[in-house]
Amino acid sequence: MDVAIIGTGAIGGYYGAKLARGGHRVHFLARSDYQTLLDHGIEVESVAGDFCLPREAFSVWRDPADLPACDLVCLTAKATANADLLPRLGPALKPGATILVMQNGFGVEERLAALYPQAHVCAGLCFVCVTRPSPGHVRHTAYGAVSLAPLDPADAPRVETLAQAFVAAGLEAPVLSDVLTARLRKLVWNIPFNGLSVVLEATTGDLLASPPARRLLIALMGEVLAGARACDVIIEQAFIDQMLAVTQSMASYDPSMRLDHLAGRPMEIDAIYRQVMALVHSHGFNMALTGQLADQLEHIQNRPRPA
Amino acid sequence: MDVAIIGTGAIGGYYGAKLARGGHRVHFLARSDYQTLLDHGIEVESVAGDFCLPREAFSVWRDPADLPACDLVCLTAKATANADLLPRLGPALKPGATILVMQNGFGVEERLAALYPQAHVCAGLCFVCVTRPSPGHVRHTAYGAVSLAPLDPADAPRVETLAQAFVAAGLEAPVLSDVLTARLRKLVWNIPFNGLSVVLEATTGDLLASPPARRLLIALMGEVLAGARACDVIIEQAFIDQMLAVTQSMASYDPSMRLDHLAGRPMEIDAIYRQVMALVHSHGFNMALTGQLADQLEHIQNRPRPA
Repeated sequence: MDVAIIGTGAIGGYYGAKLARGGHRVHFLARSDYQTLLDHGIEVESVAGDFCLPREAFSVWRDPADLPACDLVCLTAKATANADLLPRLGPALKPGATILVMQNGFGVEERLAALYPQAHVCAGLCFVCVTRPSPGHVRHTAYGAVSLAPLDPADAPRVETLAQAFVAAGLEAPVLSDVLTARLRKLVWNIPFNGLSVVLEATTGDLLASPPARRLLIALMGEVLAGARACDVIIEQAFIDQMLAVTQSMASYDPSMRLDHLAGRPMEIDAIYRQVMALVHSHGFNMALTGQLADQLEHIQNRPRPA
Repeated sequence: MDVAIIGTGAIGGYYGAKLARGGHRVHFLARSDYQTLLDHGIEVESVAGDFCLPREAFSVWRDPADLPACDLVCLTAKATANADLLPRLGPALKPGATILVMQNGFGVEERLAALYPQAHVCAGLCFVCVTRPSPGHVRHTAYGAVSLAPLDPADAPRVETLAQAFVAAGLEAPVLSDVLTARLRKLVWNIPFNGLSVVLEATTGDLLASPPARRLLIALMGEVLAGARACDVIIEQAFIDQMLAVTQSMASYDPSMRLDHLAGRPMEIDAIYRQVMALVHSHGFNMALTGQLADQLEHIQNRPRPA
């Protein structure tokens, strides 16, 4: 396949490098990493084995208009870049291409389907600990699975084929029935861990080791389950314990929102909090605890930073 | 009157000095301020006019057992000192004395009434901005009213008399019908402003100037009103706007819980949060937002402090 990676940060660098190593022709769209990729390729430091992707093994571009037409377009930029990026993906799409939304947030698949009616839009939810310590350098410390789900149920077979390609490239790729279920399941983790890590200045390990923070995690996860139920998506209660146990089993780390905050980047408050709150509210349920956390994050984001 | 001030911090120093200036014989129980009071008296820096209370104008003691028997015993220590202090007030009580509980928390009046059945126990809720920058030095920047309420309705006339004494000493002293109403009304301010000032590292002015923090204040205040309603205490909706307007009208300041936190002292999480949550829960209502804030505070209090 020809694969476009729209946004070469931690997620784009990692999955792009894995797909390139799996034999696909990968084309990176990069901004701050452009020159390093061109000069040195990508260095992947991974629990599953370090490797270097040489510069001959991919192409890299600055402007989406220059991308070659691809079979698969992976949207790996932060949701905060969408307003600019989404309308500019046209040149990267072969007729009948698949667009895989590998970012947080609700409604992006629907917007893409409206913009590109001939494309097949899917969600690709990444369960992975990956950071980008410097341009062209990706550090992968745990996991790596991408849960795939079609926006249009008719695309289920296409998603199965895509999952096989991911598996062949050494990635776990479970298939879920629909985008909403996939996104809500991911938020069971994202809503408590991301926000609390910022408000309480804590790593995942700090939160899990603290009885009051554990109560906060469980209460917020319970509210996500209740919100999902309001949308007719049933997430089993045991999923909460499973998420806690899985996180406990990993080395303590800073969730992406805390990394964004510490680096002075905008936090994904809309993509992780506001959008799901609005969706669930439209189904008659108020996610009050989630709202309190989101307002705290918004205050923290807006307050003047210490000099 | 002979007046005992049980705990000479900001509250005890301020109200004790005002009562002494009003002509009462005031006896301070002091620990860290003992020697300064003995050597230099009390210096009151006040928006209502600075004054010095000379050492001849009061007595000061280290051990409650040494206090003279008094007509009025004002419990002005932090609630965190109660386990030690409450059983040791006997010597300070004349037969039929009044105990005025000038601290945060629920159930202290009831415990005192059980310990001292012949005393008349009242709540005295302080609406005041007062700090103690150094021993023997009190800084009063706004307000000063003490809302008085009897534990036993039969003590209503006694509370009226006490209010007159406070007014004669230059203090506002509105009388409320009962302790529960008085305490719940005070929590409408205490629950949002104290906790959010710690979690968001903000002054009152920072919180009021920030739209998301204002939403947090209003949501928490609304939950206190709902909790009060569950206890059959009706607080009018307009009280929320009134509390916001009153706080806005004052110079921005750090609520007492933030001062405690910054100084490394324990925060009054039980007295301001847990006790009312338990009471309201026993009436069938769950204060979920308040609980989330309390758990955040507990996490912050327990986490290791930066070196």
